[in-house]
Amino acid sequence: EGVSVGSAVREQHGRDESVHRCRPPDVVVFPRSVEEVSALAKICHHHQLPMIPFGTGTGLEGGVGALKGGVCFSLRRMDQVLDLHQEDFDVTVEPGVTRKGLNSYLRDTGLWFPVDPGADASLCGMAATSASGTNAVRYGTMRENVLNLEVVLADGTVLHTAGKGRRPRKTSASYNLTNLFVGSEGTLGIITKVTLRLYGIPESMVSAVCSFPSVQSAVDSTVQILQAGVAIARIEFLDDVMINACNRFNNLSYEVTPTPFLEFHGSSKSMQEQVSITEEITRDNGGSDFAWAEDEETRGRLWKARHDAWYAALALRPGCKAYSTDVCVPISRLPQIIVETKEDLIRNNITGPIAGHVGDGNFHCLIVLDPNDPDEVQRVHSFTERLETLVFRWLQTAKHVLPVSQPH
Amino acid sequence: EGVSVGSAVREQHGRDESVHRCRPPDVVVFPRSVEEVSALAKICHHHQLPMIPFGTGTGLEGGVGALKGGVCFSLRRMDQVLDLHQEDFDVTVEPGVTRKGLNSYLRDTGLWFPVDPGADASLCGMAATSASGTNAVRYGTMRENVLNLEVVLADGTVLHTAGKGRRPRKTSASYNLTNLFVGSEGTLGIITKVTLRLYGIPESMVSAVCSFPSVQSAVDSTVQILQAGVAIARIEFLDDVMINACNRFNNLSYEVTPTPFLEFHGSSKSMQEQVSITEEITRDNGGSDFAWAEDEETRGRLWKARHDAWYAALALRPGCKAYSTDVCVPISRLPQIIVETKEDLIRNNITGPIAGHVGDGNFHCLIVLDPNDPDEVQRVHSFTERLETLVFRWLQTAKHVLPVSQPH
Repeated sequence: EGVSVGSAVREQHGRDESVHRCRPPDVVVFPRSVEEVSALAKICHHHQLPMIPFGTGTGLEGGVGALKGGVCFSLRRMDQVLDLHQEDFDVTVEPGVTRKGLNSYLRDTGLWFPVDPGADASLCGMAATSASGTNAVRYGTMRENVLNLEVVLADGTVLHTAGKGRRPRKTSASYNLTNLFVGSEGTLGIITKVTLRLYGIPESMVSAVCSFPSVQSAVDSTVQILQAGVAIARIEFLDDVMINACNRFNNLSYEVTPTPFLEFHGSSKSMQEQVSITEEITRDNGGSDFAWAEDEETRGRLWKARHDAWYAALALRPGCKAYSTDVCVPISRLPQIIVETKEDLIRNNITGPIAGHVGDGNFHCLIVLDPNDPDEVQRVHSFTERLETLVFRWLQTAKHVLPVSQPH
Repeated sequence: EGVSVGSAVREQHGRDESVHRCRPPDVVVFPRSVEEVSALAKICHHHQLPMIPFGTGTGLEGGVGALKGGVCFSLRRMDQVLDLHQEDFDVTVEPGVTRKGLNSYLRDTGLWFPVDPGADASLCGMAATSASGTNAVRYGTMRENVLNLEVVLADGTVLHTAGKGRRPRKTSASYNLTNLFVGSEGTLGIITKVTLRLYGIPESMVSAVCSFPSVQSAVDSTVQILQAGVAIARIEFLDDVMINACNRFNNLSYEVTPTPFLEFHGSSKSMQEQVSITEEITRDNGGSDFAWAEDEETRGRLWKARHDAWYAALALRPGCKAYSTDVCVPISRLPQIIVETKEDLIRNNITGPIAGHVGDGNFHCLIVLDPNDPDEVQRVHSFTERLETLVFRWLQTAKHVLPVSQPH
């Protein structure tokens, strides 16, 4: 999560920027209903054919690769928004509905779906991959926001994980199958409907940025803001290399220093209070140029820069490919880990701007490398191994480092 | 959840007030470590003996009954608080540690664990039963607050659902086994450690009560408060029968009308704003006597009344037994369902004060009945069947109605 790649990149750049080799299926089917998905699954099951569910293909991890060929279920023709219950803050959508598509549909209701992995992903795909994003610290990830799933199992059986037509806020009926399928990455079944929690659009949103003299002081600040219980909606960290890339790519002029991007959601009154506590903490940590903005345009520009981070990183070295690490550690260990990781990148001459949803201790190195330079590939490979070791050995609290495969 | 029964009641009242018949095991073992639990499980597994995990026995649903005899694993001797990470807001505890025990341990840290089902339950038991409570609307249920579990499977295998020593805020590593075990009610394994999210104790807490002319207007009010996006921490509804019972039991003098109990957590400033929006909504719905309190004593008295609801209900008819229904519906349907349910109770002459965490659409009828009166038992039985039908047929959104067994 975090940035967009795969088919989205291919569409925008006309070529494959992903490190995952294209592994096409033998057949692509375009079912229009759960009944068709089920009928097709029965045929595949009978003939023992691999099935690959496909939403928008914006995932970074190569989950849609048909490693053994088989049948790709492209689900974008199932694109209905179903059963919007405004008064209960929930909605059900089919796999062709994306995050932005749903929010555009909801525009006049005063509601929105906040989980935002960056890419305009399919919501069913976001459920399948347990997507997270910039504002997880306030609204949670898909895990906390999926109320029910309709799933077609490998043999064509249709299952409703929380019961047909149900949208429980809380339940103690049977096992929590919903959260077993959330994050199952298509390995347990094909998600054909997702029922989601919605939220009221906050009265006011304020964004803020601040420059710091060092990575340590910037990350210390974000950690202290979280520990102070400031009700922050988004908190993202960009290091100097990332800021420089964003400035170039989006024609901006942020100071090239370690920089947290922050956002607060709430009433106008509570907003002022949150901002002033945050300002105090950043000042105590040597932060300067604390700038905040309430208007949508300035805020939009700021978050566009963050969302374009992947492309901005790629633009640092035209013709190269990008490869992202994905690590989650307890926030108390975050400053140390980021500092050490950054030193490692510099020492080994690796282009790896750092960005992360530090709200939950998660950060990415967006490594840009020349896949035809075996020495560089080897250095990146060794770096990811050291990062993995660092995280596992010293912290005993890793999330997930992407499998260290040969980038190509 | 919601109220305390079982062994806690037996301890306090010297007799069994539960509707579940006592079904003792053949043997009770008192392991002191996960190794002992594992070794004992291996023996039971080898001899095909049923295993019944037992924490504090405060559950209402009879989950600790040894229906086929076997070996009860009483886990209260494993009572250590382990691995408190203040800076990361997490802690790991053994099954003998209760909710109140943990909060008392945390007293000087500025942190607390907010999930509060009423009873002073074991935290591992709360994980096993996916406990919820009065402030789920703000802090979520156990589902959102368990980061990792150590579990002994039926054959003695020790499993860490999120990896040994891990306490991830977010993860995409493997299937979400943690949430498969949360709510599994002891059917998948014996929980021997739980790692929990902690929260900062809010700067300020304000409680409020308000009287309403009708159930409809009271529930409408609470629904509108939620829909207005007021960041409420607790919201409980008590009907006139329940308020009357609480007044008598706790020597209070609340007006005997449908009454919501509310609580707000946050900074002093945001508090005033929340309270004033709430006051406006309640006034618009005909509410009167809006009273709010910031001091701990008044707040304590109010929530004690709510927590004692079960005993207060029982005290309405000394010598009788209590039986609770447990229904969760979308909040938009809540006013209608509660009104209809209340009419049914009155029409059939059933003593059934109503209380509920209406924040997530969940409410209980605390039915008090004479188990030796077959006519009354039959009337209660029919009532619960009608409630079940009402919920399932009209709403297509039920949570869980307790299995309708013959109360005894």
